[in-house]
Amino acid sequence: MQVRKFAVADATFERAPDQDGEVFVGNMVDQRHGAPITVGFGRYAPNQRLDAMIEVDDVMVILEGNLSVDSDAGTVTAGPGEIVHLAKGNQVTIRSHEQGAVTAYVTYPHWQEA
Amino acid sequence: MQVRKFAVADATFERAPDQDGEVFVGNMVDQRHGAPITVGFGRYAPNQRLDAMIEVDDVMVILEGNLSVDSDAGTVTAGPGEIVHLAKGNQVTIRSHEQGAVTAYVTYPHWQEA
Repeated sequence: MQVRKFAVADATFERAPDQDGEVFVGNMVDQRHGAPITVGFGRYAPNQRLDAMIEVDDVMVILEGNLSVDSDAGTVTAGPGEIVHLAKGNQVTIRSHEQGAVTAYVTYPHWQEA
Repeated sequence: MQVRKFAVADATFERAPDQDGEVFVGNMVDQRHGAPITVGFGRYAPNQRLDAMIEVDDVMVILEGNLSVDSDAGTVTAGPGEIVHLAKGNQVTIRSHEQGAVTAYVTYPHWQEA
């Protein structure tokens, strides 16, 4: 694999699986490409809520807006330039706020295979 | 491991190993923490140059400034909100420009053990 650059405008977004809310994911690198990680962009409409069991280590870098993540450890809220590490095995609720949010994400291993 | 949030102000930066330039890394999650990935922030002073063989899959999300990455595939330049995937096995030169740069990074596996 080569060195590749991705912008959010390059992403093809689809609704996050098993979710009813307006939360979208766009993988740029995944199990089709031969690397061990998945890389992509996430987009949250305003005031959405996503409940998930975290099946793979997932790192979100907040690019726009704010996201809150509720877990057994409490709630963290992150904004632009901040990182949230969702370690495998956590049950979480991810919530967007008034302005929605855009993220960059990296997972190991590939979340679509988990 | 729990859900954790990191801001660049939380990072303890050290000079990137085996480098002479003003390029600094601050791991927030690494081999000490039990997850399979390393997560951190990078900081590049203006007009720096880093030559490296990429030993692990490395994803950089540009938070501030711009970085150019030269490799066999040519040169990519990324700015705020963009992602660069440095796949394992590439020989690269990473260059900052007039304004320096700040990144968030994720590697698999841990770069300090590679």
